[in-house]
Amino acid sequence: MLTETGTGALTETPAATAVFTAVLTEGPLSRVSLARRLGLSSAAVTKAARPLIEMGYLQELAATERTGPGAGRPASPLAVQADREYFVGVKITGDELIGVVIDLCADVRASAHRPLTDPGVDAVLTELGHLVDDLLDGPGGYRPRTRRLGLAVSGDVDRATGLVRYSPFLQWHNVPLRERAAEVTGLTVTVENDVKALTTAEHWFGEGVGAESFALVTVGTGIGCGLVVNGRLVSGSHGVAGEIGHIGVDATGPECHCGGRGCVEAIAGTPAIVRQARQTSGRPDLTMDDAVALARAGDERIGAVFARGGEAIGLGIAAVANLVGPARIVVSGEGLAAYDLFERHIRTGFERQAFGAAVECPLSIRPLPFEQWARGAAAVSIQSLVAP
Amino acid sequence: MLTETGTGALTETPAATAVFTAVLTEGPLSRVSLARRLGLSSAAVTKAARPLIEMGYLQELAATERTGPGAGRPASPLAVQADREYFVGVKITGDELIGVVIDLCADVRASAHRPLTDPGVDAVLTELGHLVDDLLDGPGGYRPRTRRLGLAVSGDVDRATGLVRYSPFLQWHNVPLRERAAEVTGLTVTVENDVKALTTAEHWFGEGVGAESFALVTVGTGIGCGLVVNGRLVSGSHGVAGEIGHIGVDATGPECHCGGRGCVEAIAGTPAIVRQARQTSGRPDLTMDDAVALARAGDERIGAVFARGGEAIGLGIAAVANLVGPARIVVSGEGLAAYDLFERHIRTGFERQAFGAAVECPLSIRPLPFEQWARGAAAVSIQSLVAP
Ligand SMILES: [Zn+2]
Ligand SMILES: [Zn+2]
Repeated sequence: MLTETGTGALTETPAATAVFTAVLTEGPLSRVSLARRLGLSSAAVTKAARPLIEMGYLQELAATERTGPGAGRPASPLAVQADREYFVGVKITGDELIGVVIDLCADVRASAHRPLTDPGVDAVLTELGHLVDDLLDGPGGYRPRTRRLGLAVSGDVDRATGLVRYSPFLQWHNVPLRERAAEVTGLTVTVENDVKALTTAEHWFGEGVGAESFALVTVGTGIGCGLVVNGRLVSGSHGVAGEIGHIGVDATGPECHCGGRGCVEAIAGTPAIVRQARQTSGRPDLTMDDAVALARAGDERIGAVFARGGEAIGLGIAAVANLVGPARIVVSGEGLAAYDLFERHIRTGFERQAFGAAVECPLSIRPLPFEQWARGAAAVSIQSLVAP
Repeated sequence: MLTETGTGALTETPAATAVFTAVLTEGPLSRVSLARRLGLSSAAVTKAARPLIEMGYLQELAATERTGPGAGRPASPLAVQADREYFVGVKITGDELIGVVIDLCADVRASAHRPLTDPGVDAVLTELGHLVDDLLDGPGGYRPRTRRLGLAVSGDVDRATGLVRYSPFLQWHNVPLRERAAEVTGLTVTVENDVKALTTAEHWFGEGVGAESFALVTVGTGIGCGLVVNGRLVSGSHGVAGEIGHIGVDATGPECHCGGRGCVEAIAGTPAIVRQARQTSGRPDLTMDDAVALARAGDERIGAVFARGGEAIGLGIAAVANLVGPARIVVSGEGLAAYDLFERHIRTGFERQAFGAAVECPLSIRPLPFEQWARGAAAVSIQSLVAP
């Protein structure tokens, strides 16, 4: 039973938004501690929480005993009711759709994927409809409590309007994806750039929770970065932000497709690694998997290609740390399937170029299961429950 | 007559802070337009403004006629009363104190400077006392309406406690400058890093007004950057932010005092320019002034040193634009006394490395009169009128 009207957000006042966001991302929390951290009166917290409890989104946990000095009434912390609503997230790539269902705590309940033979908009939308049906009508029985779908696409995406301005891997230009996907699925759709979606998931439900600033670097075909600064995702006044892949770290390095020179991506992106591995091995048909296997087997020249790539990534990360000083930086992405080959060199480049205390910024370097991209998309649709 | 108590801020509620800040930085503004932009009721704006009007900080301008369709009562915009209070700002360098008096609109009313023969703390504080007396007891008669002093120091400064943790040019370590300067001058003191102070002045009273994001790059002995992102100055979780000077832009470039390689500062800072100009000319006693004169006279090899420096600065600025996407970037500093030699090359480097639409970010490249640093320090002390 969904009681709020239309497709709008659940929260109607700034206080309700603040309370719901805090419990979603940092809960369970007592009313007293919510009031303290949000600068609200206890009465305001109670008033803001009431409709969310009535609608079943928040629940009161059993009162915990307080036995310390000055203990007042026992506190009943507020927590999210995880299975109150489910959310579908789908990452759209050029050759595959990856989908998940998550609950209100962003825990993955189901996942599925569908190969794409045609990256055209109509074909993708048809497959998307099938994928959503697979996810929602399967054994979990998620359909009745699912209203929202998040989509993640690489490239230039306008979340506010749901328009995919340009997605290079899909070769999409100005696709009104929100509307089209809503027609096909009957769900309320949010569309976000894939790196930003993943960053949102880490900021709300992962390693970035509670951080005023935070960076997520993704390594793969492209090298991107989601940034949270002063508590909010950085969007860029001219539509560009987080383009760590196009920081120039080597003035005499290779030319990049962007027109720059010595870009991190032109040294360390998957196509750059493959190109260099082919040159150094003299094998024009070498694949990324081949390069990884050879380097792991001890091929020093191909190992050096990964070393140079890792170091370039580390220099880019140092630029992020030197400029905005995030509390922590997560480095991930499908390119880090080879993270054993990259990790040491990422740290070397970072430590050499991080300025002073910036070197204290913790780096979490870890592979990224591909379904995490889909979870990021679904996390953005949880976010759309909350009024801006 | 100063009616608020102690040394606290003028504003006591978030609404009053918001109203005073908006009128200070963007005024004059009508109550209606204040209410709209701050998301407050008209009654809340009126209530917040009343004590500020009573204390003489804000004034009601004469009502302006409104003749358009739907015009209601004529609006009486609120404006700052510029001469209600004056503020002293002093920039402390290794060999000079530069001071100004500004009014509440941050307009400079008086300036003075004093050479320093001894950069030790005691000697600097003695000279600071004389400088403040010179500024306040001169013909302007600023003393009776001046209570606050802002100090700007390069290096690692903790504004919250007024502690100078480390200032390399002064060779100061852990100097409790706020307390010491308050004892000497009898004023309420704020202490800030010089680049952050200058950025604050631009954000509140200069080219950054109204921008959600904004960057100020300073070129001189050091190369620094103040960043405003999501409406607030970026401080860095580990105490480091804005270190554009230590972004590595040339993997095979010169080693830097920071331990990095190919840092912008190691290529384009004043000592780096002088070092390269000496090498290329074979004149070990060449000064920066000599290098500028030779380059202006057409010496191609020394011109090339400035070209390489300017391009490195442009690459660093492109990294800022690619990562955080500021609405605009101001490039200034005493090094830009030679901006005719740098400017074209800064733009070349920036345009080559800015990614996609990031190239649309406007660059203002201009020399920086040295007293602007002191104005920045005074602007920070205006900011301290406003509750955090
Ligand atoms: Zn590039
Ligand atoms: Zn350096």
